[in-house]
Amino acid sequence: MTSPTIILIRPQMGENIGAVARAMKNFGLSELRIVAPRDGWPNEKARDMAVMAADIIDNAKLFETLAEAVADVNYLYATSARSERNMRKSHFAPREAVATMNQQLLENKKIAVLFGPERTGLINEDVAICDAILTIPTDPVHSSLNIAQSAVILGYEWWIAQEHMKAAQAANEEEQPATREELLGYFDALEEALDQTYFFKSEAKKPRTWRNLRATFLRAALSSQEVHTLRGMLVALTKRD
Amino acid sequence: MTSPTIILIRPQMGENIGAVARAMKNFGLSELRIVAPRDGWPNEKARDMAVMAADIIDNAKLFETLAEAVADVNYLYATSARSERNMRKSHFAPREAVATMNQQLLENKKIAVLFGPERTGLINEDVAICDAILTIPTDPVHSSLNIAQSAVILGYEWWIAQEHMKAAQAANEEEQPATREELLGYFDALEEALDQTYFFKSEAKKPRTWRNLRATFLRAALSSQEVHTLRGMLVALTKRD
Repeated sequence: MTSPTIILIRPQMGENIGAVARAMKNFGLSELRIVAPRDGWPNEKARDMAVMAADIIDNAKLFETLAEAVADVNYLYATSARSERNMRKSHFAPREAVATMNQQLLENKKIAVLFGPERTGLINEDVAICDAILTIPTDPVHSSLNIAQSAVILGYEWWIAQEHMKAAQAANEEEQPATREELLGYFDALEEALDQTYFFKSEAKKPRTWRNLRATFLRAALSSQEVHTLRGMLVALTKRD
Repeated sequence: MTSPTIILIRPQMGENIGAVARAMKNFGLSELRIVAPRDGWPNEKARDMAVMAADIIDNAKLFETLAEAVADVNYLYATSARSERNMRKSHFAPREAVATMNQQLLENKKIAVLFGPERTGLINEDVAICDAILTIPTDPVHSSLNIAQSAVILGYEWWIAQEHMKAAQAANEEEQPATREELLGYFDALEEALDQTYFFKSEAKKPRTWRNLRATFLRAALSSQEVHTLRGMLVALTKRD
């Protein structure tokens, strides 16, 4: 599986570009794109700061415009400290965003995350061409994070999500999660049994009670085996001698 | 509630001390202690880098030795890229650590997190006096994070944990988690009903099946209301006309 591309637009300090590359290296990200850097490209300060991540700097692709940099990108996240609720976009915290990215990568989409210039952050014109806004939760009074700090947090969440996915895959080999069909089959059988025993006090109250009851079971993220057991339990409990 | 204290031992660059203060300010941490800084104290570079977090630098307490800096600390976390498994200590990732810290703070313990010098990290002698080791998960081949990056990640997890706790408290006012007594009451009633209907194929298989079934319900972290509903469901299903 590939990983998200990091795009820096109009970055100012070479040191910050290097620090972003280091953060990427710490957390298994490798593809960096740079749009119109203030001090030109290549940038020796970026390379010096990158240290062990110099290869990310050396392989970074340079673009003149954001449009060119994202030409092959299927889904673009804009990082912004302001949550810009007035813009009609999906909003994600980093943890939700990486979960969504993993799903999108499984669908073979090309994903990128855009970071704005240090001083100003992304301007509205840049955010407008993004699909979603990624905002790092901070004290609202002190929300200014530099691009390297933001990249560290995104990278950290990305790395943890990869570790969780690997652990989940290992666990799944033993225990398959229940399919939608198995769950719905159980719910149908349960609903029928509860209807027959007049569990729902009234037709008016039933929808809410039944929705809450299903939510309880859904929250447990049942495995196939567990749904099987619950169905067996239902059969046993409703058996008439 | 208070928050964990950040302790920097033998920090080298003033800029890094300032960057740690900024990270603290972003994420609602305020108490900084400095042990034997290389370039003396106060440090103008630290204050310049801190910007909006200059008050954290101004209020930072200076100590000559780590022993003095932690004299009033009940539980001390050492941050280390190496997980030092040979040392007999508790090991935490940041997310687990902040959950533990919240618990410790509720018990009125004074908590601190220790960060080592930039070049070397903590030496074994420092780690030895800590209670637990906090390691940020990274690509094992590229695990070097500077102190400001580490502080950003710790602060970020701290902030999210506070937000989650506030949300959980708000939710709890509506929906109380089930008590142990309610849960065990439900399990007793369910076990009796399942015994009566010969759900457990054999006495030999029962312990394992029953343990797994209880685990399924426990995982859902049921509320009082949900346990009440499940008991009502059990009564309805086992009703004999």
